[in-house]
Amino acid sequence: MLQSNSNENAIIIAEKTPFPADTNSLQAIITNIDFNNFMMFFFEGIKSSLIYPCTDMHIEKYRKQNRCLIQESADDYYNITLPYIQSNQLSVEWVYNVLDKKCESERIIFDNPDQINGFMLLPDLKWNGIDIENLYVQAIVYRRTIKSVRDLKEEHLPLLKNIREQGLKTVEEKYNVHRQQIRMYLHYQPSYYHLHVHFVHISYDAAANNVGKAILLDDVINNISLMADYYQKTSLTFEIKENHPLAKHYRKLKLEN
Amino acid sequence: MLQSNSNENAIIIAEKTPFPADTNSLQAIITNIDFNNFMMFFFEGIKSSLIYPCTDMHIEKYRKQNRCLIQESADDYYNITLPYIQSNQLSVEWVYNVLDKKCESERIIFDNPDQINGFMLLPDLKWNGIDIENLYVQAIVYRRTIKSVRDLKEEHLPLLKNIREQGLKTVEEKYNVHRQQIRMYLHYQPSYYHLHVHFVHISYDAAANNVGKAILLDDVINNISLMADYYQKTSLTFEIKENHPLAKHYRKLKLEN
Repeated sequence: MLQSNSNENAIIIAEKTPFPADTNSLQAIITNIDFNNFMMFFFEGIKSSLIYPCTDMHIEKYRKQNRCLIQESADDYYNITLPYIQSNQLSVEWVYNVLDKKCESERIIFDNPDQINGFMLLPDLKWNGIDIENLYVQAIVYRRTIKSVRDLKEEHLPLLKNIREQGLKTVEEKYNVHRQQIRMYLHYQPSYYHLHVHFVHISYDAAANNVGKAILLDDVINNISLMADYYQKTSLTFEIKENHPLAKHYRKLKLEN
Repeated sequence: MLQSNSNENAIIIAEKTPFPADTNSLQAIITNIDFNNFMMFFFEGIKSSLIYPCTDMHIEKYRKQNRCLIQESADDYYNITLPYIQSNQLSVEWVYNVLDKKCESERIIFDNPDQINGFMLLPDLKWNGIDIENLYVQAIVYRRTIKSVRDLKEEHLPLLKNIREQGLKTVEEKYNVHRQQIRMYLHYQPSYYHLHVHFVHISYDAAANNVGKAILLDDVINNISLMADYYQKTSLTFEIKENHPLAKHYRKLKLEN
């Protein structure tokens, strides 16, 4: 909710909290244990937070936005998406700072510093590091030439298999979560164009896991194994906010033609 | 919540309803418009329903269950999954009744009765038919020999492209939703083994949209176009409840070896 007062803006974010696991704490308003009537319960529990002062960027981020799906052929990638990435690419300097251990090094939970097939594993900022059912860690590769899944080919299979094996082993050992309970995926389009892989607990359902946004690491390895240049040839469908510059770019160059 | 009384069981399902879109209807408990304090709101709105009498099957269905991911190679499909489907397949008689127009025919929103490349489109029971942001319709094919994505090959491309084109056109015309706002996918494993495609509004985020559960129709068409026997060769990773008979079957035959 956006509230304005004396030319200043603030955003209030309200989230309903989950039902308590302990059902004894539920407060019954009407109970009729002979089951002939519905029961109504009363739950409190709203988590709220305030962003103040807030900028237009904050407002844009939290404003409800329509999303759309764009089908990107291989040609579209080279003619539309790639030039867009090259001219609008946000700096990945912060990633390089992490890889160079200039910052966040105390957060590293696994490090294979091989510059070709190595990666580091860090908890994602969206995870509090405690609730296992929300487990969320990211693998960030050392190689600096892979922007996204579109650049992946046969030569990267050892890197991808390393991420899968060493990443899963680390999560199993450190957090005691079985590998069958970890969803490993890449985003396309990613939020930053330096290859990284998400490791997320299977109980964590979020829009970021949606097909059209996430691509399973297993599928990537499998597709490249079946066809070495799969990601240079295939069409990819991706979900994006309608107001995202890339979506506008597509509308301008493709949809209106 | 499971409640028991005099040897009878009942399930009470409670869902928190969304915040009202009209923020004026929000009831502020504490407001402090100078932004120095948090605001707390009070919302009512719990949707509840009762299942009574309920069977063990109902209890199993609604009980919280751990999920897991299983990687199914092509060999696994033929050696484990397919024999499981053949010996445990739930009847799809109800689908045939729909296709034969013995029931639900008043719900059909599009019908192309071609027995090779035709399909019918019906609203999914999860959709109330009104809220466009929760739009959910299903395309059910007339052909009775396609159990799942695993059976799809080059010869089915006309059928799949028909579903995409005629399905999107129908949704655009009937519900005024742009095709870029419709996520079309198949489930693997599906809930019934007769080929059907989900058409869901992009605003509708649900676990059923997760990668590892859903496969985009666009990806299916694209993969078969790149490699005619893709779905007979590829590995597929699917999400399943740990207590599902197929998951138990996998543990018995594969994981313990």
